Amino acid sequence: MMGKAGLSVSPLAPASFPDLPVIDGVEFASVAAGVKYQGRTDVTLIRICEGAALAGAFTRSSTRAACVLDNQAKLARGGDRDKGAAIIVNSGNANAFTGARGQESVDAVTGAVAQALEVPASRVLSSSTGVIGEPLPHERITAVIGDLAGKLDAAGAADAARAIMTTDTFPKGAFAEIGGGPSRIAGIAKGSGMIAPDMATMLVYIFTDARIAPELLQQALDSGLGTTFNAITVDSDTSTSDALILAATGRSAVAEITSLDSGAGADFVAALHGVMRDLAHQVVRDGEGATKFVEVQVTGAASDADAHKVAMAIANSPLVKTAIAGEDANWGRIVMAVGKSGARADRDRLTIRFGDLVLAEKGWRAEGYDEDQASAYMKRQELLIAVDLGLGQGAQTVWTCDLSHGYIDINADYRS
Amino acid sequence: MMGKAGLSVSPLAPASFPDLPVIDGVEFASVAAGVKYQGRTDVTLIRICEGAALAGAFTRSSTRAACVLDNQAKLARGGDRDKGAAIIVNSGNANAFTGARGQESVDAVTGAVAQALEVPASRVLSSSTGVIGEPLPHERITAVIGDLAGKLDAAGAADAARAIMTTDTFPKGAFAEIGGGPSRIAGIAKGSGMIAPDMATMLVYIFTDARIAPELLQQALDSGLGTTFNAITVDSDTSTSDALILAATGRSAVAEITSLDSGAGADFVAALHGVMRDLAHQVVRDGEGATKFVEVQVTGAASDADAHKVAMAIANSPLVKTAIAGEDANWGRIVMAVGKSGARADRDRLTIRFGDLVLAEKGWRAEGYDEDQASAYMKRQELLIAVDLGLGQGAQTVWTCDLSHGYIDINADYRS
Repeated sequence: MMGKAGLSVSPLAPASFPDLPVIDGVEFASVAAGVKYQGRTDVTLIRICEGAALAGAFTRSSTRAACVLDNQAKLARGGDRDKGAAIIVNSGNANAFTGARGQESVDAVTGAVAQALEVPASRVLSSSTGVIGEPLPHERITAVIGDLAGKLDAAGAADAARAIMTTDTFPKGAFAEIGGGPSRIAGIAKGSGMIAPDMATMLVYIFTDARIAPELLQQALDSGLGTTFNAITVDSDTSTSDALILAATGRSAVAEITSLDSGAGADFVAALHGVMRDLAHQVVRDGEGATKFVEVQVTGAASDADAHKVAMAIANSPLVKTAIAGEDANWGRIVMAVGKSGARADRDRLTIRFGDLVLAEKGWRAEGYDEDQASAYMKRQELLIAVDLGLGQGAQTVWTCDLSHGYIDINADYRS
Repeated sequence: MMGKAGLSVSPLAPASFPDLPVIDGVEFASVAAGVKYQGRTDVTLIRICEGAALAGAFTRSSTRAACVLDNQAKLARGGDRDKGAAIIVNSGNANAFTGARGQESVDAVTGAVAQALEVPASRVLSSSTGVIGEPLPHERITAVIGDLAGKLDAAGAADAARAIMTTDTFPKGAFAEIGGGPSRIAGIAKGSGMIAPDMATMLVYIFTDARIAPELLQQALDSGLGTTFNAITVDSDTSTSDALILAATGRSAVAEITSLDSGAGADFVAALHGVMRDLAHQVVRDGEGATKFVEVQVTGAASDADAHKVAMAIANSPLVKTAIAGEDANWGRIVMAVGKSGARADRDRLTIRFGDLVLAEKGWRAEGYDEDQASAYMKRQELLIAVDLGLGQGAQTVWTCDLSHGYIDINADYRS
């Protein structure tokens, strides 16, 4: 938990927060409202200019939070694109499983933002992250909205990335400049536990000055989820509050993107997916207690769906993850995870590699297997586990981290 | 791992090993063969009399071990019931993912037993448990078979329960006397990690003197799996070696069971399922690092399948299990697990109880919720988490343990 004594920055954190470019038409403000945490910022307001296209992806949890349901309804309804838009985010309380009072809090907060910024409430999205099941003290948030509105700043993304943190140990940001600069994408994210996204993960906000219609923007977003946010897992648990919101302000001087298959469309999609992957990796790098960043590459599966099952079975296996924490090249546990995945597999066609080292093939320990080499490899901070099933063309890559004592430390008393 | 310094007996262990009744027609012998461990018994031979009916249940892992495949083939083929039968078990090496050599080892070991006991090789079943992917030094086992054959003893079940242990901290046994004594069931089991059975779990051997045909015996076994071994989980990982073997010697003086629906048939099934449940609970009580024994009761689901999904989502959630280890009444994580399960759920109909305490209902924290009471409840060693979905008649109860530092200690260096 942010502010918890002794929770130091993940050893897998990037060296520094990136120098995010300003996105014309987007401004940020963050303040300390004391929702739960003391002595740190915890509420962020984001104003988005008139004419912006909005898109989103949200958790499919059947117990999703009131703000998630509200965002989904507002984005589905659409309209009022000629008006401005806003996003209001608090950390410290998820406003999830808070009954009818949950929606009342969302209405109070988004209504206050609509009034302060003179935008329709239907264009004000919101997110809450933190403990589940506690009523949100929304009056602490509405009380600071005037203050926030007066502080909006196009250069405020880095502060916003800090204000939305919960158990995160570092703020997360990523950007891309399309075609060398005339159009840009910048995003921020939070997340480190309860990470097994089922649509999008945790809280992610991405902005671009590209000119693009909402339908195309949504399509560009959706096509990237399977290889970015839906391809990561920290602990196999899925948040009630996962949300990714993407806004395109249209302020770039570059011509409007009218097809994702055009050269400009493809460039935009590639840049967007790159930013999504970068942020998704940062979430894994801040996995609770993580000491290793692990790429699991599955190839040769009977189908992509089978490859996904195998990759997630490996990435979520407590026995695989504890072996990695212990720097033990225990490839037998990879065999176990393949076996339990439910995917089609043939022992005699399976190949298992750690980095370039072939550990097992043809149904057995590889000839020339060298335990010392394998053990030396496991000491690295970034690991590749590659499994080829030898059956077909199905492939999936996912990213995860190890399961260490740090995860237990953080989660055995998160609330207290 | 058995013999690993500092691995003390689980705090959830029964006070003592039960005083198992002798099953007429079954004898046991155990010796130290040095398969892997030093200074302890690690190979057990079980001889079963002529005329016995055999039944079995095995892991559905696609990477199951050679001995599991061999047992399945032999039981499917059937026949030779008028001949004797045997089971040979080793700990320390799972003989899983050992290619063609795996089957050669099974043939060598079961062939040697067949010769020594003068029973058909098709009636010799085998199990191996321990590390995956290492070749089984089967000559160490065949070397002790003569010694084992000379030591067979009807009272040897307790020694056998010890010889088959790996990371277990206590031997597991259970029994029942049907109708107050004239017919009996006795079983032993091993298992504490890689426990999320997909058919049967770990190694379990159950014997009865009942007179019953193999088909009926198999049916009696199958009908109990869903509420016993398939209703437990320690770590969501499924073993390559799970096997349950059940033998009925027919030596009881009680009349043959010719229908499971008869009074005698129903009594037998109830007693058998009771022994299975007892052994399954003991496996959970010896869950790696376990400090709490947890019953998860799901009711009111749209279907039994949905209830199973919700119960397993709760029982396998690392966030729920670490909260239990930390004695934190973090019921928000139960809401999360319900949400991610994929089962139909309605926030406003969900009720969550810990023991008799109602924590959440009607879509929110229960009126009269008392954090101090809930925290006091969490300090117990045996916990009940009850979730009613309020939608239908679907129900499932599963049993699990917490996720503690002990699990990481045991598994971060199991092989070394």
